Amino acid sequence: MTNVQEMIERRERLLGPGNPLFYEDPVHLVKGEGVWLHDADGNRYLDCYNNVPCVGHCHPRVVAALCDQASKLNTHTRYLHENILDYAERLLGKFDESLDRVALACTGSEANDLALRIARVATGGDGFICTNATYHGNTTAVAQLSSIFEPIGGYGENIRMVPWPDAYRAPENLGGEALADIYADEVRTAIESLTANGIKFAGMIACPIFANEGLPNVPDAYMEKAIAYVRDAGGVYIADEVQSGFGRTGDWWGHQQSGVVPDIVTLGKPMGAGHPISGVVARGELLDDYRRHEMYFNTFGGNPVSCAVAMAVLNVIDDEGLVAKAAEVGEYVLQGFTELQEQHELIGDVRGRGLFFGIELVNDRKSKEPATENAKTIVNAMRHKGVLMSKIGEHDNVLKLRPPLCFSRENADFLIKTLDDVLVAA
Amino acid sequence: MTNVQEMIERRERLLGPGNPLFYEDPVHLVKGEGVWLHDADGNRYLDCYNNVPCVGHCHPRVVAALCDQASKLNTHTRYLHENILDYAERLLGKFDESLDRVALACTGSEANDLALRIARVATGGDGFICTNATYHGNTTAVAQLSSIFEPIGGYGENIRMVPWPDAYRAPENLGGEALADIYADEVRTAIESLTANGIKFAGMIACPIFANEGLPNVPDAYMEKAIAYVRDAGGVYIADEVQSGFGRTGDWWGHQQSGVVPDIVTLGKPMGAGHPISGVVARGELLDDYRRHEMYFNTFGGNPVSCAVAMAVLNVIDDEGLVAKAAEVGEYVLQGFTELQEQHELIGDVRGRGLFFGIELVNDRKSKEPATENAKTIVNAMRHKGVLMSKIGEHDNVLKLRPPLCFSRENADFLIKTLDDVLVAA
Repeated sequence: MTNVQEMIERRERLLGPGNPLFYEDPVHLVKGEGVWLHDADGNRYLDCYNNVPCVGHCHPRVVAALCDQASKLNTHTRYLHENILDYAERLLGKFDESLDRVALACTGSEANDLALRIARVATGGDGFICTNATYHGNTTAVAQLSSIFEPIGGYGENIRMVPWPDAYRAPENLGGEALADIYADEVRTAIESLTANGIKFAGMIACPIFANEGLPNVPDAYMEKAIAYVRDAGGVYIADEVQSGFGRTGDWWGHQQSGVVPDIVTLGKPMGAGHPISGVVARGELLDDYRRHEMYFNTFGGNPVSCAVAMAVLNVIDDEGLVAKAAEVGEYVLQGFTELQEQHELIGDVRGRGLFFGIELVNDRKSKEPATENAKTIVNAMRHKGVLMSKIGEHDNVLKLRPPLCFSRENADFLIKTLDDVLVAA
Repeated sequence: MTNVQEMIERRERLLGPGNPLFYEDPVHLVKGEGVWLHDADGNRYLDCYNNVPCVGHCHPRVVAALCDQASKLNTHTRYLHENILDYAERLLGKFDESLDRVALACTGSEANDLALRIARVATGGDGFICTNATYHGNTTAVAQLSSIFEPIGGYGENIRMVPWPDAYRAPENLGGEALADIYADEVRTAIESLTANGIKFAGMIACPIFANEGLPNVPDAYMEKAIAYVRDAGGVYIADEVQSGFGRTGDWWGHQQSGVVPDIVTLGKPMGAGHPISGVVARGELLDDYRRHEMYFNTFGGNPVSCAVAMAVLNVIDDEGLVAKAAEVGEYVLQGFTELQEQHELIGDVRGRGLFFGIELVNDRKSKEPATENAKTIVNAMRHKGVLMSKIGEHDNVLKLRPPLCFSRENADFLIKTLDDVLVAA
C-alpha cells in the first residue's frame, strides 16, 4: 500500500511546493503496459491521457532498441554514427519534400526555442504571433509565446496574441469561410500592429490542431488564409507538432489536413515514446541560414541511443499500422462521444482528430457557459473508476483525451461506458 | 570499413552544413566500454575527452538500471513515483544543507535557462554577469551569456562580461590576492555599469572552475571577493556545474574549493552518464519563490527512467570511489604533464583539477603567444595515435582533457607517453 500523503510531503520538501500533480487523489504508478497503467495498490487504469508513450507503455521493441544501443555506445554527435543519419533520412521521408533538413534536440521546448531563432535569422525580424490560449514550452524565449502562464517580467513588445479559431463559440450565423476570414483577419491585424510599432515581423507559431486551445473544429481554410497573411508579410509559419505529430491525428502530421505546408515543424513528446528526443524539421535553406549565423550544438541531441529509440518508434508505428488505426478507432470513439452528447445536456460539443479528443462541457447549451467545475469533478471521478484523462482549454472545461495509438475498440467501449456512468452520476 | 566521406555527405544533406564534427579525419565510433572507444574499422581509442560517460562508457549497472525501469514504467511527474523522490533526496545529500531543493530537466541548457529565471524572480532584476570567454548553453536566453558564439540579434543591454581570472597571463609581479582583487574589481565595475544604466542586477553565472575559459589556476580568494560584490549588490551566484560536477574535480562539486557556497547550482552532462537529465539545485526559498510566479513543468524531466539512471550513476560513483580516484589519478596525470612541460618548450602552462586538465600551448614562453595551430595539429595527431581529446580557451590553444572518472594510472601512462611522442614530432 502506498502512503500517498507521505510521498506528497516528500515532494514538497525536495522539489518544493507548486509541482503539478494530477487528480485530487494523486495516482502512484508502478507499471505500464500498452494502454494500461498500474498503481502500487494493484489497481489498473486505462490510459486515455498519455500521448508520449504513443506506441503503448513500455513497448518491447522500443525497450529492446534502447537497451541494445545503450549497452553498445552512447556519445554526442561530434563523432560519426549511422543512427542519426538513418533516423534523419527516415523521418524526413515522412514530410513534404520541401521540408528536407532536421536538427535534433531533447525536448519540445528546446525545439521551439530553436525554431524561433531560425525564424529570426530567416526574416531579420523578431515579431511573433501566437494564439491567446496556448502553451509552447518552458524556456525563457518560448514562455513569451505561452498565454496560459504569464512569463516572468511580462510579455515583450514583440509578441502579439490572436484569438484561436473557435468555431463552437462563434456567432451562430457564421461558419465556414466567413468565420475563417474573421479569425484570419486577426492575424493580419496583429502583423499590422507589429509593423506600426516598428517591430519587424518574423512569423507565427501554432499547433496545427490547436491542441492546447481545446482542439477546436478549425473553420474551413483558416490556416490557408492566416498563413497567406504571414507569408505575404515575409514571415514564416512554425507548426508546433509536439502534440499533433507522429500519427496522433490519423495522419502522420497535424498540418496535413490544414492545407498548408509549414516552413518549420517542431517535434517532441511522442518522438521517443518517453525517451527525451525532439527535433526541428525545416526547409533546408532556413536551417542552413541559421547555422551560418549561430552554432547550435546539443550534447545529448541525436545521440545513438536517442536515435535508436526514435527509429524503433517509427518502425512500430509503421509495422502496427498505428496511423491508420488512430484514424479508424478515433472515428469510432468520436461516434461514441457524439452518442453521449445526445444523452447528456452537459456535453456542449464533441471534437476529435484521430485519437485526440475534446469534449466541451457547458452548463447551458444555449449560453454555452463553461462547466469548469463539472470538468474537474468528472476527471477525478473517472480516475476513481479506472480511466486516466485530463482537461484543457481557455475555460478549463474541455475534457482532454489522447490515449496511446494502440488504443482498441474494446478500450473505447470501456472508456465510453465509464464516461456515461460518470455523467449519469454528475 | 567505413565510408567516412559518404557519412559526411549524408550529414550535410540531412542535418545541413555546419554541424560540428571532431578531427580532420572524423571518427566513426561503434562501441564504448569503460575508458575505451572503438571505431568501425576495429581501431581502439583511449577516451580522454568525454566527461558525459563519467562512470565509463556503457557501465553495466547504469545500462541495467535504464533497461529495468524502461521495461516497467516511464511517465511524466504528474503522477507520484518514488524514483524522483529517492533521487532528489540522495542528490541533495551531496550538497551544503543550504541547497535543499531541486528541479529536474533534460539538458544543461534547460537548467541554466531555468536558473536565470529563478534569479530574476529572486532579485526583481534582469542584469547578468558572465565571463568573456565562456559558454553556458543553447537556449535563446542562455546564449546571451555565451561569449564564445555571439547570439542572434546581438547581446542585450542587461549583459555584462568580465575578464575571466587568468593567472597565467597576469602581469608577472601579480599573484594571489592582489590578482584576485583586480579580477574581482571587474565584477564590481560590471555591477556599477548595470546600475548606472538603470538595469537592476540579478546575478552572476560562472563555472566554478572556468572550464570553457581554459581551466585557469584561479587566483586565491577570487570567488569570495567576486561573489561578495555580487551579494552585496543583491544578486545571486549561479554556479554552472554542468562540466565541473559529479566528482570531476576530485570533489563532488567544483565550487567546493572556491570558498563560496552558490545560491543556485546547475547540473547536466554527467548526471545520467549520457541519458538526458539535468537539474537545478537551489536554496529552497529561491525555487519556491520562482514556482509561485511561474509554472515550470518539463515533460521528460525527472521521469522514472531518468531518475533510475541518475541514481545508478550516483551509486557507481560512490561504490567505485570515483571522486577520490579522480583526485588521486588526477594528481598522477598532472605530475606527468608537468614533466612533459619540462621537456617541451611548447607547453607554457599545465593546469588540472581532479580529472580535468588544460595544457596551454605557446610559441614562446616569455611572450606567451598562443600556439593555436599546434594545438590543432596535436589534437589530430593524438587521434591518429589512438587518444581522443580536444582543445578550448579564449585562444583555442589549450589542450582539453577530461576522461571518464574510471581512468587508471595505466591509462594515464599511455596518454602521457603518446602525448610525449606527438610533442617530439610536433
